[in-house]
Amino acid sequence: MTAAPTETMPAPARQPSEVHNPSSEVAHFDASQPLKLACQQVLAPFTIAYKTHGSLNPDKSNAILICHALTGDQHVADNNPLTQKPGWWETLVGPGKPIDTTQFFVICSNVIGGCMGSTGPASINPLTQQPYGLDFPVITIGDMVEAQRRLIDRLGIDQLFAVVGGSMGGMQVLEWASRYKDRVYAAVPIATAAWHTSQNIAFHEVGRQAVMADPDWCRGNYYAAGKTPRNGLSVARMAAHITYLSEDALQQKFGRSLQDRSEVTFSFSADFQVESYLRYQGSTFVDRFDANSYLYITRAMDYFDLRDDHGGVLANAFRGTKTRFCVVSFTSDWLYPTRESRAIVQALNAVAANVSFVEIESDKGHDAFLLYEPTFFATIRGFLNAAALKRGLPGSTEAQQ
Amino acid sequence: MTAAPTETMPAPARQPSEVHNPSSEVAHFDASQPLKLACQQVLAPFTIAYKTHGSLNPDKSNAILICHALTGDQHVADNNPLTQKPGWWETLVGPGKPIDTTQFFVICSNVIGGCMGSTGPASINPLTQQPYGLDFPVITIGDMVEAQRRLIDRLGIDQLFAVVGGSMGGMQVLEWASRYKDRVYAAVPIATAAWHTSQNIAFHEVGRQAVMADPDWCRGNYYAAGKTPRNGLSVARMAAHITYLSEDALQQKFGRSLQDRSEVTFSFSADFQVESYLRYQGSTFVDRFDANSYLYITRAMDYFDLRDDHGGVLANAFRGTKTRFCVVSFTSDWLYPTRESRAIVQALNAVAANVSFVEIESDKGHDAFLLYEPTFFATIRGFLNAAALKRGLPGSTEAQQ
Repeated sequence: MTAAPTETMPAPARQPSEVHNPSSEVAHFDASQPLKLACQQVLAPFTIAYKTHGSLNPDKSNAILICHALTGDQHVADNNPLTQKPGWWETLVGPGKPIDTTQFFVICSNVIGGCMGSTGPASINPLTQQPYGLDFPVITIGDMVEAQRRLIDRLGIDQLFAVVGGSMGGMQVLEWASRYKDRVYAAVPIATAAWHTSQNIAFHEVGRQAVMADPDWCRGNYYAAGKTPRNGLSVARMAAHITYLSEDALQQKFGRSLQDRSEVTFSFSADFQVESYLRYQGSTFVDRFDANSYLYITRAMDYFDLRDDHGGVLANAFRGTKTRFCVVSFTSDWLYPTRESRAIVQALNAVAANVSFVEIESDKGHDAFLLYEPTFFATIRGFLNAAALKRGLPGSTEAQQ
Repeated sequence: MTAAPTETMPAPARQPSEVHNPSSEVAHFDASQPLKLACQQVLAPFTIAYKTHGSLNPDKSNAILICHALTGDQHVADNNPLTQKPGWWETLVGPGKPIDTTQFFVICSNVIGGCMGSTGPASINPLTQQPYGLDFPVITIGDMVEAQRRLIDRLGIDQLFAVVGGSMGGMQVLEWASRYKDRVYAAVPIATAAWHTSQNIAFHEVGRQAVMADPDWCRGNYYAAGKTPRNGLSVARMAAHITYLSEDALQQKFGRSLQDRSEVTFSFSADFQVESYLRYQGSTFVDRFDANSYLYITRAMDYFDLRDDHGGVLANAFRGTKTRFCVVSFTSDWLYPTRESRAIVQALNAVAANVSFVEIESDKGHDAFLLYEPTFFATIRGFLNAAALKRGLPGSTEAQQ
């Protein structure tokens, strides 16, 4: 047999232009407005890249902050400037959609540590005038929220009508609701957890080791070397991608179907469709994401433990809250299984919070939160409309019919 | 922050001596006795390295063939010559153990494609006098069984009393029972499946891509270059290792416990015990396993589809069988979940085979088949004793009490 060319071979290094010149709006915070981080370092100056949709009403009471997941970005409901694909939640967010931009003012910002314009490891370190690389401080979910809070302050919004997000976005929702109880009217943590489990830390560690094992990672300084750890980052993405799907979804989507061939080739080429699919996922991810951002953001998720932050009692994180919560999980999500959501609900119940909990029947795995699931969409629409009415905001057009 | 030294940094290349000079017995098959492979190529000459325990009785009716899993070897019940650790199933196999070597003659051979003395990609290619590397033909589970059959012939054994194996070993058990119905009195497929699922192919593909992404893989010719793709193989092992454990097992074993520190370090070092554990698993694996063998054996598993081999009807694989089957699965095994075993049992039922099926309650995940689980051990002991009595063999000492 002959060696199959892998589809993850090195390609010319490319620095995504969005790092330094994002297509979206940006909020700059100069050296006089430093961001104090959990690690005790400060980030200054720093930039938050963000997108908005809809209009802020006169009393600034209709703002919804959407928090993105690990590899997401601010382009929640508009074409992604790198991939030209629709926004990652464009089915959920837009005019007449469950998060209705004719009623709500939607804000979505790239997390710090990211690579779409908010300050991250690929950004220029003012001390060296070179990309930070591993000199970028290790950040936390709390730091991401702190940066968002600064943006919300700048937009002059006192209280967010809602904070909504799935997966890592859901962690930010929980952190917001815990840190700024008076500034969050409603909170929607989806397919998430109040602390990262051992298994999830393990999967992240595999991804990081894959990146770091790539010689083109150059101990984090690949920018200067004009390289990109394509192979390592691609392997990391492939491994992660499996965890986003359910076994049933993989079975239904691919099963043991062969890729453009009628028989196996007795080689290491992508005989099976699932192999071809994963290689494609790995390869395209590298074109849009910074490897060091992947390290930093996975680390932030690993460090997330809202229970530990509150003396080992998760309920303490929410004591005194007046926020209305809607907690959502999906039956086939094995990365953030329903029991993680139940732990959140139990903590909220323990402080008599206003909480509804919906486990959505779905065979799509963790990815379900990014996909069209009628019950999920109806849940979001219904919860937001009810909360809007409670707050004296007009409901969405559909709810008014 | 500073870069954490990863524990998977390159170490001097080492060619495990067991490849060419195994510590165990070997059966050589010269060029006049080629092994015809599923890919239509032939392997000649070829060698099977194997270990035996106990004594073959005069009528050669007490032989049990044990088939090893992906990274196992022939050292089932004796110290491993590379690691100096006890045999991988030493708790189950030995004098007075459930597979009692005072009653049974146990044979365990290294699979072809392996790296412990049976012919594999690290073996010398007679055409070039260099290690095969990727010139080694892609093999199948059927080819492994065919090679074992040649060994059993040479040992003069007409009918095996039992063929026993877990995971990939279980695939070999099924293949034996299907191919050589008259030569297998009893079959014990454990924690296995009759075809490799999409998700399992996906995890294997990630592992292979991790190996192939390592520049030290040298497109499979690392032997001549004096290198070993340590980092890639280590990442592959780390990813695979997660799938061998249940989430509960990881939670109980590690949870979010920190490794030799009281606080997180805000770095990429192994803050969490689970990270340290995985790095260790990756690192030690590389010391005992050949990277190309990993590619070839995972590929053989991916190709395994006993249903497809029999016209899409698994029952056809067993039609006419007189073999007594004991199918075993474990509740927390998500790699080879119980439903895969049920599919085997249903196929056996469809041809009125003699089959018992036990799902063992365990929180240890797929790894459970390698660990001491009292109900599992009792099941194996009971099944083998009953089958032995049926065949007119003396039962084990414990059963006779």
